[in-house]
Amino acid sequence: MNDGYSVGIVGATGAVGKELIRLLYERNFPIGNLRLLASARSKGKTITYEDHSFDVEEATPESFDDLDIALLSAGSGITKALAPEAARRGCVVVDNSSAFRMDEEVPLIIPEINPEAAKAHKGIIANPNCSTIVALMALYPMHKAFGLKRFFASTYQAVSGTGADAIVELDNQVKALVNDQPVEKEVYPHQIAFNVLPHVDVFLEDGYTKEEMKMLNEGRKIMGLPDLKVSCTCVRVPVYRAHCVSIQAEFEQPVEVAAARDAVSNFPGSELCDDVDNLQYPMPIDYSEKVNCGVGRIRKDSALENGLSLWVSGDQLWKGAALNAIQIAELLHERGWVSIKA
Amino acid sequence: MNDGYSVGIVGATGAVGKELIRLLYERNFPIGNLRLLASARSKGKTITYEDHSFDVEEATPESFDDLDIALLSAGSGITKALAPEAARRGCVVVDNSSAFRMDEEVPLIIPEINPEAAKAHKGIIANPNCSTIVALMALYPMHKAFGLKRFFASTYQAVSGTGADAIVELDNQVKALVNDQPVEKEVYPHQIAFNVLPHVDVFLEDGYTKEEMKMLNEGRKIMGLPDLKVSCTCVRVPVYRAHCVSIQAEFEQPVEVAAARDAVSNFPGSELCDDVDNLQYPMPIDYSEKVNCGVGRIRKDSALENGLSLWVSGDQLWKGAALNAIQIAELLHERGWVSIKA
Repeated sequence: MNDGYSVGIVGATGAVGKELIRLLYERNFPIGNLRLLASARSKGKTITYEDHSFDVEEATPESFDDLDIALLSAGSGITKALAPEAARRGCVVVDNSSAFRMDEEVPLIIPEINPEAAKAHKGIIANPNCSTIVALMALYPMHKAFGLKRFFASTYQAVSGTGADAIVELDNQVKALVNDQPVEKEVYPHQIAFNVLPHVDVFLEDGYTKEEMKMLNEGRKIMGLPDLKVSCTCVRVPVYRAHCVSIQAEFEQPVEVAAARDAVSNFPGSELCDDVDNLQYPMPIDYSEKVNCGVGRIRKDSALENGLSLWVSGDQLWKGAALNAIQIAELLHERGWVSIKA
Repeated sequence: MNDGYSVGIVGATGAVGKELIRLLYERNFPIGNLRLLASARSKGKTITYEDHSFDVEEATPESFDDLDIALLSAGSGITKALAPEAARRGCVVVDNSSAFRMDEEVPLIIPEINPEAAKAHKGIIANPNCSTIVALMALYPMHKAFGLKRFFASTYQAVSGTGADAIVELDNQVKALVNDQPVEKEVYPHQIAFNVLPHVDVFLEDGYTKEEMKMLNEGRKIMGLPDLKVSCTCVRVPVYRAHCVSIQAEFEQPVEVAAARDAVSNFPGSELCDDVDNLQYPMPIDYSEKVNCGVGRIRKDSALENGLSLWVSGDQLWKGAALNAIQIAELLHERGWVSIKA
């Protein structure tokens, strides 16, 4: 008899943390006890969700002694310190940061794509990068149909991916500009309102950003395609919370648009939004607070032999972060890959 | 002795029309007489620029009798009717619409790229599509260095490309949202504020838009590369007036980032804005009201053998429209390919 899991959320005060609380309840995850953990700075804060009220506790190694599942949405530094402590204490960690994603011992999971890989977890499971999740929710069903070889991606990423303070910054900048006031910048190095920044995460030696390399490295790991070629340019746009990705993809086998559409329609977690005659295509305002990612603009690519061009939109805070993490927890629960402490 | 040309602007009341007036004066184009023409609806309006004042005349075939140069920025329908009438009357037309761009008799000119092609004009010269101009200002110098074979482009297009009413619509929608008022849509089929639309110009049978095919067809014609392969996705973003394009380009010869940067730096009309260590890359707010297009994020492409990834930004109303048109007129003047009527 399952009385429910003791679940902890680390980073509960952030943009993703809030969605984790909401979605745990909305999706009726079998919670016995929910505790909210954060940095010492947030200790003592009270967070309410509907008729639930929580005192935020400081996250320490001992916090995990009584927890079964911890959903982490914190910086890489804190995560690297806390996740192994949690795992050692028998608490399964689903981690939203990039800290462990490329660790060979750590499964990197999109439940619709590689659920079986989660079985081998050693206490830590990584939640993939948001843009990568959204792109793969479109590409994976097509990969199953035609065999993915290479893809080119340009992203249109919402400010929610940077965090709650970035959402406030866009809001403040827009209000300042509407009222002819000077624009203040704290989160981004440049104005984000009415602008686009070809810059997400930090720059690497070769001129790519870390974010751009996630699409390549995480894409290969999640889909089990070590030779996949990926070229990505990540761009921040003045949108609040859903990401979009423009993709040109090359496949092993000849492609058909109708078959690609069918593949998307039949893939759980994705939906076809592709009726250009009626001006229907995925847009961030329509895919905010949506469980499914929307895939559209599917057409034969004009520069690739077996190629498709496409466009996908998905909620960065949901499928790109909190929802996927909870779906991993649901997977662990359903398959019996996590247990309730005695 | 040159007393200056009789110049007419058709579509003088639009977003491009205003920039044409401004740039003709700012760049000291040798104007003898400037007349502003528009549809019957705008007849009698007065337009002022600094200490110049103009009564808008209705554009008719006879309007061109006394004109040497006409800069057209009107719809395709009006253009198709008026441009041949103007040419027949000895007035050289520089046309901003798509009406004649792919006409074999009509040169399609970016003065930095294919100035010589303008010589053969028969009274009409076409100004290319805005996104195409911005993309080629980055790609052409690299083509000269390495030989362009194929490219993939995803655009981030400002609302100025749609016209003055679209600039007002973005402004109104943002103000409505800031004040918790309902959003009104007239110009775009969907909200543009805090949203992105993978939809520019009309959809064709094969799922591409007309705008996307311009990058292919006009790119081939301007650079004289009939076998060039291009795949393009055009996207409208909530930015006021400069376009950006994310490009992955494949070349015939091995590429070097340093050589690509040099090629851009030495190409008139483009400038290198590529210092990621200091977070410098081209952005629309920096490339609005700029003569040059900015090229940055140049790096070896991670999915192409001889490939470069890059990012370019340019003012849609200037290099993407009015400035390029005036540069064509300047070219005609400098080379003696237009004359003043007796």
